[in-house]
Amino acid sequence: MPTVIFQPSGRRGLVDGGTNLLDAARQLGVDIESVCGGVKVCGKCKVKLETGFFEKFGIDSRQTNLSPFLPDETDYLTEGEIGDNFRLACCAKVLGDLLVFVPEESRGAKQVVLETGKERVFKLNPAVRKYYIEMQPATLEDHRSDAERVKDTLNAKYHLPRDLNVDYLVLRDLPTVVRDGHWKVTVTVWNRQEIILVEPGLVERALGLAVDVGTTTVAAYLCDLRTGQVLVVDSMMNPQVRYGEDVLSRITYAMMNDDGLEKMHGAIIEGINTLAGRMTEKIGLTPDAILEVTLVFNTVMQHIALGIEPSYIGRSPFTAGTKEAQNIKARDLGIKVWKAANVHTLPVEAGFVGPDNVGVLIAEEPYKEPAKIRMVIDIGTNGEIDIGNAGKLLCTSCATGPALEGAQIKFGMRAAPGAIEKVRIDPETMEASYKVIGQDKWYPELKKTDAKGICGSGIIDVVAELFKSGIIQKSGRFNMKPDSPRVRKAEDGRPEYVLAWADETSIGKDISFTQGDVRAVQLAKAALYVGSRYLMEKLGVANLDSVTLAGAFGSYIDKESAMLIGMFPDCDLDNVMAVGNAAGDGAKLALLDVEKRDEAAWIAREVEFVETAIEPDFQERFAAAMAFPHSTDKFPHIGHILAKVGK
Amino acid sequence: MPTVIFQPSGRRGLVDGGTNLLDAARQLGVDIESVCGGVKVCGKCKVKLETGFFEKFGIDSRQTNLSPFLPDETDYLTEGEIGDNFRLACCAKVLGDLLVFVPEESRGAKQVVLETGKERVFKLNPAVRKYYIEMQPATLEDHRSDAERVKDTLNAKYHLPRDLNVDYLVLRDLPTVVRDGHWKVTVTVWNRQEIILVEPGLVERALGLAVDVGTTTVAAYLCDLRTGQVLVVDSMMNPQVRYGEDVLSRITYAMMNDDGLEKMHGAIIEGINTLAGRMTEKIGLTPDAILEVTLVFNTVMQHIALGIEPSYIGRSPFTAGTKEAQNIKARDLGIKVWKAANVHTLPVEAGFVGPDNVGVLIAEEPYKEPAKIRMVIDIGTNGEIDIGNAGKLLCTSCATGPALEGAQIKFGMRAAPGAIEKVRIDPETMEASYKVIGQDKWYPELKKTDAKGICGSGIIDVVAELFKSGIIQKSGRFNMKPDSPRVRKAEDGRPEYVLAWADETSIGKDISFTQGDVRAVQLAKAALYVGSRYLMEKLGVANLDSVTLAGAFGSYIDKESAMLIGMFPDCDLDNVMAVGNAAGDGAKLALLDVEKRDEAAWIAREVEFVETAIEPDFQERFAAAMAFPHSTDKFPHIGHILAKVGK
Repeated sequence: MPTVIFQPSGRRGLVDGGTNLLDAARQLGVDIESVCGGVKVCGKCKVKLETGFFEKFGIDSRQTNLSPFLPDETDYLTEGEIGDNFRLACCAKVLGDLLVFVPEESRGAKQVVLETGKERVFKLNPAVRKYYIEMQPATLEDHRSDAERVKDTLNAKYHLPRDLNVDYLVLRDLPTVVRDGHWKVTVTVWNRQEIILVEPGLVERALGLAVDVGTTTVAAYLCDLRTGQVLVVDSMMNPQVRYGEDVLSRITYAMMNDDGLEKMHGAIIEGINTLAGRMTEKIGLTPDAILEVTLVFNTVMQHIALGIEPSYIGRSPFTAGTKEAQNIKARDLGIKVWKAANVHTLPVEAGFVGPDNVGVLIAEEPYKEPAKIRMVIDIGTNGEIDIGNAGKLLCTSCATGPALEGAQIKFGMRAAPGAIEKVRIDPETMEASYKVIGQDKWYPELKKTDAKGICGSGIIDVVAELFKSGIIQKSGRFNMKPDSPRVRKAEDGRPEYVLAWADETSIGKDISFTQGDVRAVQLAKAALYVGSRYLMEKLGVANLDSVTLAGAFGSYIDKESAMLIGMFPDCDLDNVMAVGNAAGDGAKLALLDVEKRDEAAWIAREVEFVETAIEPDFQERFAAAMAFPHSTDKFPHIGHILAKVGK
Repeated sequence: MPTVIFQPSGRRGLVDGGTNLLDAARQLGVDIESVCGGVKVCGKCKVKLETGFFEKFGIDSRQTNLSPFLPDETDYLTEGEIGDNFRLACCAKVLGDLLVFVPEESRGAKQVVLETGKERVFKLNPAVRKYYIEMQPATLEDHRSDAERVKDTLNAKYHLPRDLNVDYLVLRDLPTVVRDGHWKVTVTVWNRQEIILVEPGLVERALGLAVDVGTTTVAAYLCDLRTGQVLVVDSMMNPQVRYGEDVLSRITYAMMNDDGLEKMHGAIIEGINTLAGRMTEKIGLTPDAILEVTLVFNTVMQHIALGIEPSYIGRSPFTAGTKEAQNIKARDLGIKVWKAANVHTLPVEAGFVGPDNVGVLIAEEPYKEPAKIRMVIDIGTNGEIDIGNAGKLLCTSCATGPALEGAQIKFGMRAAPGAIEKVRIDPETMEASYKVIGQDKWYPELKKTDAKGICGSGIIDVVAELFKSGIIQKSGRFNMKPDSPRVRKAEDGRPEYVLAWADETSIGKDISFTQGDVRAVQLAKAALYVGSRYLMEKLGVANLDSVTLAGAFGSYIDKESAMLIGMFPDCDLDNVMAVGNAAGDGAKLALLDVEKRDEAAWIAREVEFVETAIEPDFQERFAAAMAFPHSTDKFPHIGHILAKVGK
């Protein structure tokens, strides 16, 4: 028996002569991509012959220990590949000892880099997988039904369980599809449990949608389940905002109105349908192409989005209707994607700390940090904070309010073209410079910026800069002494800072930042800071080794600005990272790697929830945290900046 | 440790002193009914103390080895029961040796007699079961969700699996229901797999609906899942009849019209909804009370009812879309019962031999007959015949046509008040006597019978009587010689026999039986006879030991009449039984005993399908079988009657 070695895994073993390389790989536990399952119609199983050549009969042409080229192979291999000794594994049979290299693109379980947000490497292993089969046509002697025939063939070829369920709506079309495909079909199987789609012939396309349903912002990612690539990113304001700005006001709306829950549930489902429609349209498809949806949200948004009575999460003892991960038929939820698709929701941890924080955890993986103290802050209308490492992880939630997402801010907007995303203020002249999303140059280099408003990262910047330049005091109050046309009284008589003059903007109005806006940011940052401090005390640590800032801002926030306004406790700025929407990344990871769902179930039970808002000194601490940092003791890492502010 | 013996099972064992009798029974494997699970609120666990009395301290009052009466017990036990030493098992604790009798009504898995049709004894063991639980209310220290709490309690108290699924629509209401019930709820679990209903407090009611969807007639049975009793029986014409009289014409309709399948599917679903509505209304409820539905049908009716493309069953190689039993959410099918209810369909055997014949088999159980040759004939628009015993079972189907269900018969109707169900004709005077459903007396004793038409059993009777009295010949042609006003020419010039004169009826018209009607019955009986003979030959038997006649006639057919017209091969009439709608009984049994579903899966694979219509001499034999019996050789058991006819 010849010996075959596969690289880069190094797996080796004896195989029967005449075995093709695809079967040889399977026998030796090497996972080679093969959409068609080895019937020479997909061309995915390209491998490269490294060793196994010899001169045959002294003739000057290189022969190999592989069977000769088949005509099928030349359809899928380029001239260059043929010259480089590439073969299709399903075509080439082992005739002698061989060393074969499996290139990255041909490996079954690929390492993939998640493209949006922070770069994250993960194993591509989605719940939804496609299998191509060619069946024996029915005969008078063979009484099997179409469904049995499909399942028998899947079992024989791919070792899928024989008792796969066939979604009822798929069963309805099965006889027609099987015959349209002349007994050659592509079967889409969910979680090795259920057949959710059967298509005639070989069909490779498989899309999934990951959605982060924030209290204020809904962010969605249309992913290719076969490559792990994010094809389209989109977001919208959560349409429930008209029923209440934060989780408590939404719960109140549900309690005060008989149809309140139904209305809010309907609004978010409609929102997701809108996103699914316009995202698939962008690549020339319809929402039918989406074969699975993953959702993350905080616990209240979860209950409302699923239509589960949310009122008991809002009051002691804050009990959720369900905490487990759910797999719900999209059609039962009213989500208009493929009719047999499932919607997977990540599990709840406790109280308001919901699937979104589980998403943050499986994306950031602080439980894999062996010793250092990590803090992960997910900034949203409801903020979640995690602290710890592999030894112990604590979490809490805090009512941040929607200010950092641009809501309840006079000129706030979400991160979209026209939003001011970065701001600097000259402490001498008090003049502003700023950058708008969609423009490369900063004002004042660019005069006409077409600014429309300010998004989260700009809001944090402007507050930090107002503080650094002395325009606002440590208490947050405007200092009316400065002699600058930008510091003026607004219509309501309270002070404001003009960030952009009307003629620079596309809205024909001065874009200003008001005393009220400063207050809203102070409430948000105080909530986050107090929550962070409680967690540090509960864990018994005085210092943080690193801080990760996550949030669906669209654009990254400036970590120095964030620390300067006191959003989180002191930390070496080199170890502070802004990672974008980590909860959304968690939704994507759960969509693309089914093992992340197991990890989510485990960590949701493992992380210890700390209720901080009920601490007796909460109000007192919260009030104190409203002020901007003035103690270099508490913030040694930004002491040099604070020293200048103090002068 | 005291010894406790339970009768009538005789199970015995040692139990800890102080154990209540309900727990003692569980420990010893004795199944005692207890809806509330032992919290003293249902009163179902009545048992009778047989031995275990003693005279305490010489005082003249009988003491027992059981703990004293609790006040709770007197709420549920009558004076008489208390005098007879009845106790509630959940209240009475074991203090010494005991002999306890568990009466039939208190046994968990009851033997029940199915009331409609033939009396059938079965074990009450439905897929849908109710469990009463009292939970620990949620606290700040106990972070479990409502769903987890319900499942944990079910697991602790009833050993149900921890990973029960909660139907999504049930999950939505869960927080409200749990609190409405003050943490005491009744949970309905389907198949030990899924929670399909949660109700506040103790709720015992559990209904199920069994439906036999025939090509012509739909028969439905509303059953009490807690007692096995049939509460309401109802039937209707299959509303698909307007799209075609038999299975082939329905398939043709589906093929010729783009919306043909959808229309027919919609029609039967609407029909089932109508039945569910009026049947539950009859007992003051709504269809919401129905917690599971079982369906039987032939393979074509199955495909159309489920909306699965039926055209490939209609042509060689007659392949079904699915043959397996299905569990489909009623809401996915459009069946308007409890929103989380499942619809269970029995499996297909082969070709047209569908779940209805599987229903017949699990009701009649010919596979339990050790040696004798049984033939079971299910008479419907599509007839199915089974032959054999525990050793071997064969089946076939035959295109009977709807005549025996009253369709395509001039005055045919389904078995309902006003239908002539029994007929006798005096061979001397050729005068008719008949009996109408809803009337006790026969015509002519009753002059005004209010007859409206003739149902299946009447149709078979009238043909047999016409033949016996010589009004029709062996060929089926009318003999115009007889001098009777009842034998006359119809409007079309062809002969007919007047069964009821206009003034007797409620329709103001003579009810007659025409030459065409006779032909329709001949076609039906010839199909059944030829199918039966082929099966006998395939099995290699010359004689039948018994014949069972089943069919959704509503009323039983006269076995002598049926044999006289040659519907089935000769058999001792003592061993011919008419059992009513056995397919419907099978649907009921599958509803009431989940083990019958396993039996159905097994027998559907086990029975051997014989395709008879493709035999080369089929047409020839069919033509020969059209005639009425004239050979006493072939029918020795009715030779004495045939001899008279022959004279």
